[in-house]
Amino acid sequence: MAVNLHIPAQSDIHPVAGIEIGATEGGIRKAGRKDVTVFRLAEGTSVAGVFTTNRFRAAPVQVCEAHLAQGKGVRALVVNTGNANAGTGEPGMQAALQTCRSLAQLLGCEPEQVLPFSTGVILEPLPVDRLTAALPAAIENLRSENWFDAAHSIMTTDTQPKIASRRVTIGEHTVTITGISKGAGMIRPNMATMLGFLATDAGVDPQLLKAMTRRIADRSFNRITVDGDTSTNDSFIIMASGQGSLKIASADDALYEPLFEALADAALELAQKIVRDAEGATKFITVQVEEAANAEEALKVAYAVAHSPLVKTAFFASDPNLGRILCAVGYAGIDDLDVTRTRLWLGETLVSSDGGRHPAYTEEDGQRVMKEPEILVRIALGRGAHRETVYTCDFSHDYVSINADYRS
Amino acid sequence: MAVNLHIPAQSDIHPVAGIEIGATEGGIRKAGRKDVTVFRLAEGTSVAGVFTTNRFRAAPVQVCEAHLAQGKGVRALVVNTGNANAGTGEPGMQAALQTCRSLAQLLGCEPEQVLPFSTGVILEPLPVDRLTAALPAAIENLRSENWFDAAHSIMTTDTQPKIASRRVTIGEHTVTITGISKGAGMIRPNMATMLGFLATDAGVDPQLLKAMTRRIADRSFNRITVDGDTSTNDSFIIMASGQGSLKIASADDALYEPLFEALADAALELAQKIVRDAEGATKFITVQVEEAANAEEALKVAYAVAHSPLVKTAFFASDPNLGRILCAVGYAGIDDLDVTRTRLWLGETLVSSDGGRHPAYTEEDGQRVMKEPEILVRIALGRGAHRETVYTCDFSHDYVSINADYRS
Repeated sequence: MAVNLHIPAQSDIHPVAGIEIGATEGGIRKAGRKDVTVFRLAEGTSVAGVFTTNRFRAAPVQVCEAHLAQGKGVRALVVNTGNANAGTGEPGMQAALQTCRSLAQLLGCEPEQVLPFSTGVILEPLPVDRLTAALPAAIENLRSENWFDAAHSIMTTDTQPKIASRRVTIGEHTVTITGISKGAGMIRPNMATMLGFLATDAGVDPQLLKAMTRRIADRSFNRITVDGDTSTNDSFIIMASGQGSLKIASADDALYEPLFEALADAALELAQKIVRDAEGATKFITVQVEEAANAEEALKVAYAVAHSPLVKTAFFASDPNLGRILCAVGYAGIDDLDVTRTRLWLGETLVSSDGGRHPAYTEEDGQRVMKEPEILVRIALGRGAHRETVYTCDFSHDYVSINADYRS
Repeated sequence: MAVNLHIPAQSDIHPVAGIEIGATEGGIRKAGRKDVTVFRLAEGTSVAGVFTTNRFRAAPVQVCEAHLAQGKGVRALVVNTGNANAGTGEPGMQAALQTCRSLAQLLGCEPEQVLPFSTGVILEPLPVDRLTAALPAAIENLRSENWFDAAHSIMTTDTQPKIASRRVTIGEHTVTITGISKGAGMIRPNMATMLGFLATDAGVDPQLLKAMTRRIADRSFNRITVDGDTSTNDSFIIMASGQGSLKIASADDALYEPLFEALADAALELAQKIVRDAEGATKFITVQVEEAANAEEALKVAYAVAHSPLVKTAFFASDPNLGRILCAVGYAGIDDLDVTRTRLWLGETLVSSDGGRHPAYTEEDGQRVMKEPEILVRIALGRGAHRETVYTCDFSHDYVSINADYRS
């Protein structure tokens, strides 16, 4: 059950000139389900990516990084679900490279111009023969209208496809931005088992796009957490086809910031959709930490609260057992925190001040907010002017069921 | 349902000369249940403690630290369950101090010679009048045989009382060691909502006991985690009454190490019993990290594995989805980890080597180990000679139920 996850109508999903997508059934995840997706990119498309910080990062992640570093340009992406090709050692690396060679041959480009992505079970060999055998059918199916199909075919334990699409006016230009994401568990910043693909018809200098992509990830996919498990496969890619009229060559361009904001807004929607569809989630929770001395300590506190199983189960129960939030603030690792200067709000309700319960706070007020499907937790530290926001969900019986049963 | 938690028979619980205990019903937790416990200590008893690192540490924790620092000696402890007296600001501090004054008056000692402890709900005022009203009955009940009663009366969501008791021979001396602990959720090192009280009839110099207590905590209570939530109230106390024949004045004494080992062994038993009775636990899991470059990185990896909800739910399901363990090793924060040098064993079974699945590993082998109630996870990092061990449990539906319902 996803929390307020909006799925746009087909007519509201705008194709991006220069980007075609084809999905097909490869028999990797389960029979009768599309699990192999190919993106074909027009020549000249700028592509940049950010990837998991996990040291056991998957073979396809390593190949993506190597291929992007070669700077030959990217002409295709290939995504399989059902198997992560992670914890697979040298054979896994060979499987990822073979996938790139096969797709390159079919599309008439170089293997280094292909980026591979995998998501699914870790520590099991990738059935690479089935994957490559499925590529011709995926290519057959390439259409610029296939975003919805792609959003479906990259899902693992997701219950809903995740799509963001918009047309925005930047200067005198109409810019199209469309993207998809997947991920529901093993989700925490830097990054999540989370794939995100965002495309625009704007043209962006490749080096500039690289910096933009990192900055956008830090505002979106790097601000969500479900269970604190940083996956082996996280990847977020921005593709700028340059087929539209807007071209950005430098960060000094007056239209750079508006494009950045528009892309970041779409990325945040895609990231939040992962939280809205998180495994077992019944509540969407925004944790905002204010008055921090610096961004790092604000994030420490936000993640301590967002990761606490005790806080998350209390939200699931709609139980305003809010001492658990103070407890998490207290163990977040700020050694010189003066708890008498902190304040805690639930929505608009001031819950705690002076290190204790606020005199005007009543259990009924807390209860009322806790029952909502969307909850804002605001924590002021009384130490400075920095603010950071993290998005998470509650922790329910279904999280346990889903993760105890996944694979079976 | 606790995992292999041994409750000693009354005849195996050895009273400690110089330590008397009385418990009574104060009506703080719920009607018809003992929730107030008093320890009376003979004059000359050395007492040392370690306390939570949480910045929202409870009023009683702050009072304990202040009273111990005054060095007037400790003559009594008072423990209530049902209310943590944490997140209670200045009124909470006054309530803790008033508790000490009341007990001191009844026992004829100074308030600074009393240590208070509370455990239960955070952010609610301590019903201090009910607590102090219960003290005379608790004192009436003081007996050196009352350990079992005390173990019961300090419980919160614990399902079983936790007691360790032994008589050991050290040199020519027979030494008695008996202790109790409580805690089931909001448990992670440094420390847990966890109270531990360990007593011996050996005599130990007060300054030496302080250093010993910290060292023992680091081998026991600081090596367990249930949910990663470090509580506001954690306290671990060692009392050395000096009523027996063994006296230790310095760490150079040949009998110092044997006494240390005997106390540490009892503390580890008490700490492990908390994990065995952890909220919803069905498995007791030992995570041993070897070949680390230093203790800090060994602990980082051990805690990453022990805290991962994905790992813990896989253990609950007896599903050898062991890629989740590699994933946790990968995100534990060792930036220069060479995953091809790591190895993972489940019990005696080598699961992973060279960054991938070990060729001889079979799912059946993994499955067989996963079904056991006690599981050893061994991870070798290939970086050095340091080893650390952490104890944890699986993550079940009942954890969610217990924590979603607690308070209600």
